[in-house]
Amino acid sequence: MAKEENKGVTVKKSEDMPEWYSQVCLKAELADYSPVKGTMVIRPYGYAIWQKIMDHFNKVMESKGVKNAYFPLFIPESFFKKEAEHAKGFAPEVAWVDAKSEEGEKYALRPTSETIMYYSYAKWIRSWRDLPLRINQWCNIVRWEVSDCKLFIRSREFLWQEGHCVYASEGECDNETLMFLGEYKKLCQDLLAIPVLMGKKTDKEKFAGAKYTTTIESFMPDGKALQMGTSHNLGQGFAKVFGISYLGEDEKKHIPWQSSWGFSTRLIGALVMTHSDDKGLVLPPKIAPTKVVIIPIYKEKDKADVLRKANEVKDKLKKYSVELDDRDGYTPGWKFNEHEMKGIPLRIEIGPKDIENKQVILVRRDNSKKEAVKLVDLDIKVSETLLNIQQNLFKKADDYLSRSIIKVENFEQLDNTIKHKKIAFASFCGRVECEDHIKDKTGGATSRCIPFKSPPVDGLCVNCNTPAKYRVYFAKAY
Amino acid sequence: MAKEENKGVTVKKSEDMPEWYSQVCLKAELADYSPVKGTMVIRPYGYAIWQKIMDHFNKVMESKGVKNAYFPLFIPESFFKKEAEHAKGFAPEVAWVDAKSEEGEKYALRPTSETIMYYSYAKWIRSWRDLPLRINQWCNIVRWEVSDCKLFIRSREFLWQEGHCVYASEGECDNETLMFLGEYKKLCQDLLAIPVLMGKKTDKEKFAGAKYTTTIESFMPDGKALQMGTSHNLGQGFAKVFGISYLGEDEKKHIPWQSSWGFSTRLIGALVMTHSDDKGLVLPPKIAPTKVVIIPIYKEKDKADVLRKANEVKDKLKKYSVELDDRDGYTPGWKFNEHEMKGIPLRIEIGPKDIENKQVILVRRDNSKKEAVKLVDLDIKVSETLLNIQQNLFKKADDYLSRSIIKVENFEQLDNTIKHKKIAFASFCGRVECEDHIKDKTGGATSRCIPFKSPPVDGLCVNCNTPAKYRVYFAKAY
Repeated sequence: MAKEENKGVTVKKSEDMPEWYSQVCLKAELADYSPVKGTMVIRPYGYAIWQKIMDHFNKVMESKGVKNAYFPLFIPESFFKKEAEHAKGFAPEVAWVDAKSEEGEKYALRPTSETIMYYSYAKWIRSWRDLPLRINQWCNIVRWEVSDCKLFIRSREFLWQEGHCVYASEGECDNETLMFLGEYKKLCQDLLAIPVLMGKKTDKEKFAGAKYTTTIESFMPDGKALQMGTSHNLGQGFAKVFGISYLGEDEKKHIPWQSSWGFSTRLIGALVMTHSDDKGLVLPPKIAPTKVVIIPIYKEKDKADVLRKANEVKDKLKKYSVELDDRDGYTPGWKFNEHEMKGIPLRIEIGPKDIENKQVILVRRDNSKKEAVKLVDLDIKVSETLLNIQQNLFKKADDYLSRSIIKVENFEQLDNTIKHKKIAFASFCGRVECEDHIKDKTGGATSRCIPFKSPPVDGLCVNCNTPAKYRVYFAKAY
Repeated sequence: MAKEENKGVTVKKSEDMPEWYSQVCLKAELADYSPVKGTMVIRPYGYAIWQKIMDHFNKVMESKGVKNAYFPLFIPESFFKKEAEHAKGFAPEVAWVDAKSEEGEKYALRPTSETIMYYSYAKWIRSWRDLPLRINQWCNIVRWEVSDCKLFIRSREFLWQEGHCVYASEGECDNETLMFLGEYKKLCQDLLAIPVLMGKKTDKEKFAGAKYTTTIESFMPDGKALQMGTSHNLGQGFAKVFGISYLGEDEKKHIPWQSSWGFSTRLIGALVMTHSDDKGLVLPPKIAPTKVVIIPIYKEKDKADVLRKANEVKDKLKKYSVELDDRDGYTPGWKFNEHEMKGIPLRIEIGPKDIENKQVILVRRDNSKKEAVKLVDLDIKVSETLLNIQQNLFKKADDYLSRSIIKVENFEQLDNTIKHKKIAFASFCGRVECEDHIKDKTGGATSRCIPFKSPPVDGLCVNCNTPAKYRVYFAKAY
């Protein structure tokens, strides 16, 4: 019993969420801190979740005609400066290499890849036949300003995908900017069971260099929003400065339209915060690397029989990514704790009595419900229960999100809503200065998005009382 | 006919291999040069090949219990210095970040990840139950000394996998060091159709910090060897300096044994050089992203019929990753050239006459053989032909490798063999200084490996005439 000292999470989610979160990530072995300040290690269990996200999204991209490629980590300083807003937006975050080109040019470690990619696009795109061009890359990204790492949520280096498309027309570009955002929403809702709000960013929050930015936003149990993915219509600005043009069917030269869109390993942070509990990680079945764990329970004399039956059950359920924990030297209770910590959606217990009764005990991770299930019914029962867990987790999170949105009519209500850790849905004038004021006066609330289906607004801005342009979600955010 | 200006490779492989190679990579759209000196862009077609290599090897690793993870790009300078030989070996290649930690420590961009990974291993490994630990990462690697990029073969940044394992015993470590090398050989031979020599590196060529290095080496058509992958037994040196130890079943503290092994996007360079020809890329079917391309040939009045039949054929062959090139505005001849440039293993031509005769024309990329095949026989014929192309390409390369190995008895023969762009198989004393002399005197030949099944050696070293230790392959190399 060498490992009986294994300890659970020592604080409650409701009482100290930052500490609880860090403990869940560490103790479920999703990630670890690294000796390099601001960076993290993604451990195999965390990487397996990222792999499932990549596999899902690679299929989506393939169906949309997006191809993967790989561009350099290094970006010449002069490239940044070509698009003024882009350069300004990323300036504080950029890390540089301590070596210059022979011409004395500095190289940045990519904080995003628009500029280095579009240099190549200008070479590759010649005629309307080359469009649309849809390329994605999976890569590491460096944003140096982060010095305190919050595992998955904020770190100097993280992994992401960045899609970069070029279109002949503005209409196509608009459509696909939204289409990829829609795919992000599906990924979050269907795979990760995380409900999101969708909409446009205000001018203050849009991507540096974009015409407009669309976003999906989730809302964490501690009352902070988390940006899950963004999709930008870049307009023609980058194309102009990087010299991307194409010969149309009309034999004339045209400037194309561009979009870019990305999500990162942050999604794993949102996944952990949204569903997990005081016993550790809770994973929706669709994203769980192991969906079912079988734990045999026996005294020495029954060992052979119980293990034989446990292996039979494993075989029967193999389509569900099932694991049999037949390790010696650990008690069943210790194993229960470990697999609860790791968030495995379903546990199956098998002992001699269960074999006699031709049954197993099924225990759900999400609500701890325990049930005896006849072996003949097991396959269908497991299938139904996994589906039900997935739906249950989404519903809980979705109810929380709905309850958290408060329509506010004036600044006092907005401020109060933020103080109560909710999302204020407010009429807003759209001006950057006004948004700065709101942030200051509320101690940090930012606009999250303008919903696409915004109701008509005829009132005044919640802060400055000038005519409102739209309704906006305001909240504190990660 | 906007694109009829498409041009083939303008030099012959046999006359100017570096220029030919660069043109094939560029014109087949595998890769492109980047504005950052020494770096490259992997274009979607090249990345699709890398993806197939990753998919293949992920399956291999899964079957061996290896799990993927991700460690930081940044490595503290002090970590390098812990293992003296390692630090010395990598010193000239390291790029540093232009920002230090608060303690004034410099950060390197990883030239390899032993040190940053083993810091974490020391935290994670506690008892014999935690062993063996087998972790791999797919990532980008930076080796700054390269200033002239040779696409895929040598660049400042490249992609690779690096496996890092920890074992309780030396025997396990030895076994698995060889086992992973064996998997590399299978990958090269079975998937890429590239024959390799296997063996140990001499002391001069072994990995900085390793007990010993094993390698697989291929031999390119221009008479240069290319290292395809290496697997190192690191002994206990890294474990000692990073403080990795485990409590054994005997309740005592032990130092474990470690291995590391890696291959990179270089493999794609070897693939291009080995098989391709004056018309462009030639891909073995197993690694080809598209195995069969169908080209409909018609006059306007037959268009509908021919396209209908072409789609039927495509449907019938869909298990082979087949593509139908039904683009308007390009002649069949132009399409032939393009798909030959891209190395698609099989071309199917369908015209009205073929439909009448219930047949198609099948054209092999590897030997240009053309054959009419009845539609009823097409499925089996395609399957057989793809297999035959795979075998044919391997056999050609293997014959070339065998013909290139010359057993030499003295320095003059060795020198002559190198001058004739072949591999000299020579008795050798094993001393680093002697190897330096051979390199100088031959204008660059290095030891490639000591074959595992080396014949007994009782003669003298080919260079210094002291007693030989083993036979070694010498060649110039990339």
